[in-house]
Amino acid sequence: MSFVPANEGISKLKPYQPGKPISELERELGITDIVKLASNENPLGCSDRVKQAVVAELAEIGRYPDGGGFILKDQICAQFDVTADCITLGNGSNDLLEMFARAFVSEKDSVVYSQHAFAVYALVTQAINAQSIEVPAKGFAHDLDAMAAAIQNNTKLIFIANPNNPTGTWFEEAEFEAFMQKVPASVIVVLDEAYVEYFPENFNSLKFLAQYPNIIVSRTLSKCYGLAALRVGFALASKQVTDFLNRIRQPFNVNHLAMVAAVAALKDEDFIEQSRIVNKAGMNQLEQGFQSLGLDYVASRANFILVNVQADAAQTFNALLKEGVIVRPVGIANHLRVSIGTETENAKFLSVLAKVLDLASNAVEGKA
Amino acid sequence: MSFVPANEGISKLKPYQPGKPISELERELGITDIVKLASNENPLGCSDRVKQAVVAELAEIGRYPDGGGFILKDQICAQFDVTADCITLGNGSNDLLEMFARAFVSEKDSVVYSQHAFAVYALVTQAINAQSIEVPAKGFAHDLDAMAAAIQNNTKLIFIANPNNPTGTWFEEAEFEAFMQKVPASVIVVLDEAYVEYFPENFNSLKFLAQYPNIIVSRTLSKCYGLAALRVGFALASKQVTDFLNRIRQPFNVNHLAMVAAVAALKDEDFIEQSRIVNKAGMNQLEQGFQSLGLDYVASRANFILVNVQADAAQTFNALLKEGVIVRPVGIANHLRVSIGTETENAKFLSVLAKVLDLASNAVEGKA
Repeated sequence: MSFVPANEGISKLKPYQPGKPISELERELGITDIVKLASNENPLGCSDRVKQAVVAELAEIGRYPDGGGFILKDQICAQFDVTADCITLGNGSNDLLEMFARAFVSEKDSVVYSQHAFAVYALVTQAINAQSIEVPAKGFAHDLDAMAAAIQNNTKLIFIANPNNPTGTWFEEAEFEAFMQKVPASVIVVLDEAYVEYFPENFNSLKFLAQYPNIIVSRTLSKCYGLAALRVGFALASKQVTDFLNRIRQPFNVNHLAMVAAVAALKDEDFIEQSRIVNKAGMNQLEQGFQSLGLDYVASRANFILVNVQADAAQTFNALLKEGVIVRPVGIANHLRVSIGTETENAKFLSVLAKVLDLASNAVEGKA
Repeated sequence: MSFVPANEGISKLKPYQPGKPISELERELGITDIVKLASNENPLGCSDRVKQAVVAELAEIGRYPDGGGFILKDQICAQFDVTADCITLGNGSNDLLEMFARAFVSEKDSVVYSQHAFAVYALVTQAINAQSIEVPAKGFAHDLDAMAAAIQNNTKLIFIANPNNPTGTWFEEAEFEAFMQKVPASVIVVLDEAYVEYFPENFNSLKFLAQYPNIIVSRTLSKCYGLAALRVGFALASKQVTDFLNRIRQPFNVNHLAMVAAVAALKDEDFIEQSRIVNKAGMNQLEQGFQSLGLDYVASRANFILVNVQADAAQTFNALLKEGVIVRPVGIANHLRVSIGTETENAKFLSVLAKVLDLASNAVEGKA
């Protein structure tokens, strides 16, 4: 019964399943001491300077945001050595990923991305009823050679995440350079760097931007910068690509408090450095915990780890939920993705994991 | 030179031109005492309860919003007597208008809207490269009979604003009922009520919703509720239509601070009542001012007035700008749209308008 026929891509679309919010689990279980390691959020929250910046702008809530995003673009220009006409602001990077597809891909085109990549790549492709070309991963990582080989005549866009979510895998500059040399100049390559701030020494995407006008670098302030609640991302690209993106961008897609918060977040380098330190310590703690439990995991350069729980992923996820720990099933058999939390959160997760998997619990409280 | 071909609709698209932000004019002119009556914002700003609600949630900035929007939908359910599965949340109503088009309209379809209606209707139609059917207005207002007659076999969606922006015109329930009886049940009718809170006695859209499952009612908190900076809108529709919209909705399109602000704003009925009082007084003040100046205007049931300045609109707009007053040219010859401000703002606008139009200035400081 469909009296109002929706577009073909839409009626088949299954919406993105976000990590379960703490408030929702509280309502369901009637408990309050919940550890959420499900959405790759910064366990430190955000910088105090961000909170101050938001409070300072409360009097402006009645006014529309600056649709041109002057103050935020100004900060991005200063920090990333680009000009304002190379920047597109997004309501989180999800908004940007959707713009990329809608600007450059039509129903008769195809989009290439990797197996085990960010779920939104498939969703934005399906929403426009375009063809998805999912290239098998190689040991959980992008197989860049296979992705280049998968390009068809109708391919307009390739999504690449580095490091990749939900696997944490990464590639080096030389591999990407070899890949780019095989990609036709008319195909857009989206380099999604949502997690790049955690291991910035790994890869310099900005130098590729200057070399390849068909690259779009996508960044978010939802992860290391700790602004997930506020939805801010930005894309860096050639002027021509940026011009197209800004035609389709909703004029007030980033809200005003989000923009002032983003400026403050970008400026607070100490907070980012502290976030990296906490993340590295937490990664050691979780890796040691998994080793103690005899569980394999995928080496990560992000703020999460994909772990093989050697048991059904959905059942283990639900058993953890009942104990007040939220992690993330990501559609990979026997694997769960766990965000790196504070030392206390990580310890609770490891302890509860040992319990629900019925593994030796005396060896699991790995210390950082 | 287009090495990366964008989609056909996109490359022809001219982006929406927002009202000039105060900060931008300050930078250009080096002045600070600016009156902005360009974006139909609430001159009272927002409720104090909104500011308190935002401050109370600063600790949550690091967390993703609840993608399901539980607390906000709960408030909307209570206030508008609907169920949560009839609600779609939007990043402002612009986001909703785009979702409506993307969910139900494809390249081979057409969209009907009125001449002199909200500019975004044309933009979201063009972005998907669908056909626009613009129906001539009747004395600045929607001609509902002509709009019904304009429906083609490929028409999937009709945008209607009541009251209309930028003209302030409106229609009554009986006219809408007659219109709906002519619209096929497979065509979506969007009833955009961005300004409905100012004269709520005018029209009860909710009773039409129950009767016609092809109606979508679109609301925003950017106007009377004073949350323009935060981007919150919502759509009410049948469960089936709502299901389609939520498939295409970005999972975190409304940010967390915006949702808690929206709940507080919806609850503060005193603020809305006060906003209506200020708006009615300001409308009287501007109408009397225009009469004193000998200028015609269009009777309005919104928070703005379209005035015939009997001179070139762009030139008058620019002359006002130089005097520190921002209003809005809206593509109607010799007319400018002015938002209703505080008594002081309205008086300054009238005084400056008399000056730049070189009209008798001793009669213009209309008092409310």
